[in-house]
Amino acid sequence: MAKQRGDFVVGVDLGGTKILAAVVDNKGNIIGRSKRKSLPASVANPDPPLVADRIAVTVQEAVAAAKVTMTRIKAVGASAPGPVNVGTGWVHKAANLPGWEHGFDLGPELSKRLQVPVVVDNDVNLGTLGESVYGAGQGYADLIGVFVGTGIGGGLILGGRLRRGFRWSAGEVGHMTVMMGGPRCGCGELGHLEALASRGAISRRLSAAIAAGEPTALVVKEGATIASGDIRKALDAGDPLVDRVLVEATETLGVFIASLVNLLDPECVVLGGGLVESLGERYVAAVAEHAYAHFFLKDDMDKVKILPAALGDNATVLGASVLARNLKEAL
Amino acid sequence: MAKQRGDFVVGVDLGGTKILAAVVDNKGNIIGRSKRKSLPASVANPDPPLVADRIAVTVQEAVAAAKVTMTRIKAVGASAPGPVNVGTGWVHKAANLPGWEHGFDLGPELSKRLQVPVVVDNDVNLGTLGESVYGAGQGYADLIGVFVGTGIGGGLILGGRLRRGFRWSAGEVGHMTVMMGGPRCGCGELGHLEALASRGAISRRLSAAIAAGEPTALVVKEGATIASGDIRKALDAGDPLVDRVLVEATETLGVFIASLVNLLDPECVVLGGGLVESLGERYVAAVAEHAYAHFFLKDDMDKVKILPAALGDNATVLGASVLARNLKEAL
Repeated sequence: MAKQRGDFVVGVDLGGTKILAAVVDNKGNIIGRSKRKSLPASVANPDPPLVADRIAVTVQEAVAAAKVTMTRIKAVGASAPGPVNVGTGWVHKAANLPGWEHGFDLGPELSKRLQVPVVVDNDVNLGTLGESVYGAGQGYADLIGVFVGTGIGGGLILGGRLRRGFRWSAGEVGHMTVMMGGPRCGCGELGHLEALASRGAISRRLSAAIAAGEPTALVVKEGATIASGDIRKALDAGDPLVDRVLVEATETLGVFIASLVNLLDPECVVLGGGLVESLGERYVAAVAEHAYAHFFLKDDMDKVKILPAALGDNATVLGASVLARNLKEAL
Repeated sequence: MAKQRGDFVVGVDLGGTKILAAVVDNKGNIIGRSKRKSLPASVANPDPPLVADRIAVTVQEAVAAAKVTMTRIKAVGASAPGPVNVGTGWVHKAANLPGWEHGFDLGPELSKRLQVPVVVDNDVNLGTLGESVYGAGQGYADLIGVFVGTGIGGGLILGGRLRRGFRWSAGEVGHMTVMMGGPRCGCGELGHLEALASRGAISRRLSAAIAAGEPTALVVKEGATIASGDIRKALDAGDPLVDRVLVEATETLGVFIASLVNLLDPECVVLGGGLVESLGERYVAAVAEHAYAHFFLKDDMDKVKILPAALGDNATVLGASVLARNLKEAL
């Protein structure tokens, strides 16, 4: 099949609220894209086949935007927000898509709709793969991706290969315990990294401090979460509360990254996600400083790179395009 | 060279106090062994070439004990207690061998003395490899070895391959932070696993409690550490202090193993080391119970095995024999 086809692939990023599709050439250039909500507003239940229909349409729109036809598309790579059996394309579950708790055969269903080979993987794995091939991790055999947003997700590339895990669920860095007996995580456990250093955790700590009357210029509506951009603005304005909470979160993330390095001894750690993008390189530099201070093996410490992600929102579609291009070798 | 040689290999375990060498056949049977102190009592400084001389003699004694000759030995695999460049046989440093802080070319130096190919790796990596090929981890593609003794060491086999690390120092599970702000580790950091759940940590907590007057049948000499065997005996006798401290250490190790599983999603975790051997299967079962309770992904939880190590003190020499048999493919 590949012989008759062109040298383009499509990468798809399926999230809880949006579908992003991008046509990618063999150098990683995005030559056409399309974005849709995961479901029309009129539909309350994200029934998996309905979502698959919308992904197929989004792919076709991206192909049209690239001014090519589907016959030029070698394969489609798609991400899903949950554990994925990459061998079969089965999405085990997807936490942010309420209709998906019993799983869905996303790969085969998309392939049927689009009449091209489709390969599916977890979204954070693909974001890490994207950064490894086209982003901050180019040229490194190992890359640990740590993505800090509402939660904290991670991807592991070790010796040039994605570590997907026995149950396709490797990389849950946010759900590692860094402070036994510490604050409660969204998953119910105490002292997970996500409960201490995610944007969500920072937001909760700020809200609690404000409720307790701690002085700050930050204005937070009752019950609302605090966006990364507002955190950055308050930090720029020298707000003492935001500064203090950020210092704690930065140290926690640094100590955690040192633990990861002590375990896996990787060549490179890449920090991405909404909070990292918003706070920028100074945040990554501060986290890195804490991390290096806690490395167990100090020798050749500076050869272990701790870098900001480079691809932003395109990391996952580009990683998906790498998967689509390699197909079976991807495993 | 291999063609003229027999089908035996020798595995060597070099520790801070002893050298163990074993001749191993192609089924993993030990057919001859020898054990020496790492240095004669008259020598204070473990000068690396002197230690290499003694390793060579120990290998020759094991070969004699096996009633074969060196011409029947295909290769020697040796462990060292520190980071090892497996490609060159360079021991980067060895914490328990004070003369080795500037490293030593152990592989080439042993090969010169023994006139056979020699391959060297870290001792915990080889213990993990031994358990994977001949021990508790047989048949599993992944194996995370966690060895609990005075300290806590670890080895990672992921997808059938040892993860050695960019600086040859992967697997330092004992130096991962599980309780920020917790008790101080021997390495100087706070709240490392080793500072909470090692035999050394348990011993320190027991001594402190005894000094504080807490009732116990345990008798501890001023300044002495408490052996694993004494901990087991006190536990068998229902000593309330030992029981309480062990319950805490068990929970900590379980929570930590859940974190490892959330990160790496392995097929199998093997617990070994002096404390585990002494406390036996009930200890491993208690740790496993805590671990499962903290898994992030509960699905197929029971397919992830948490098992006691099976090879005891032979794990490292047997792992070294696997390395010797595979030579370059080992990397």
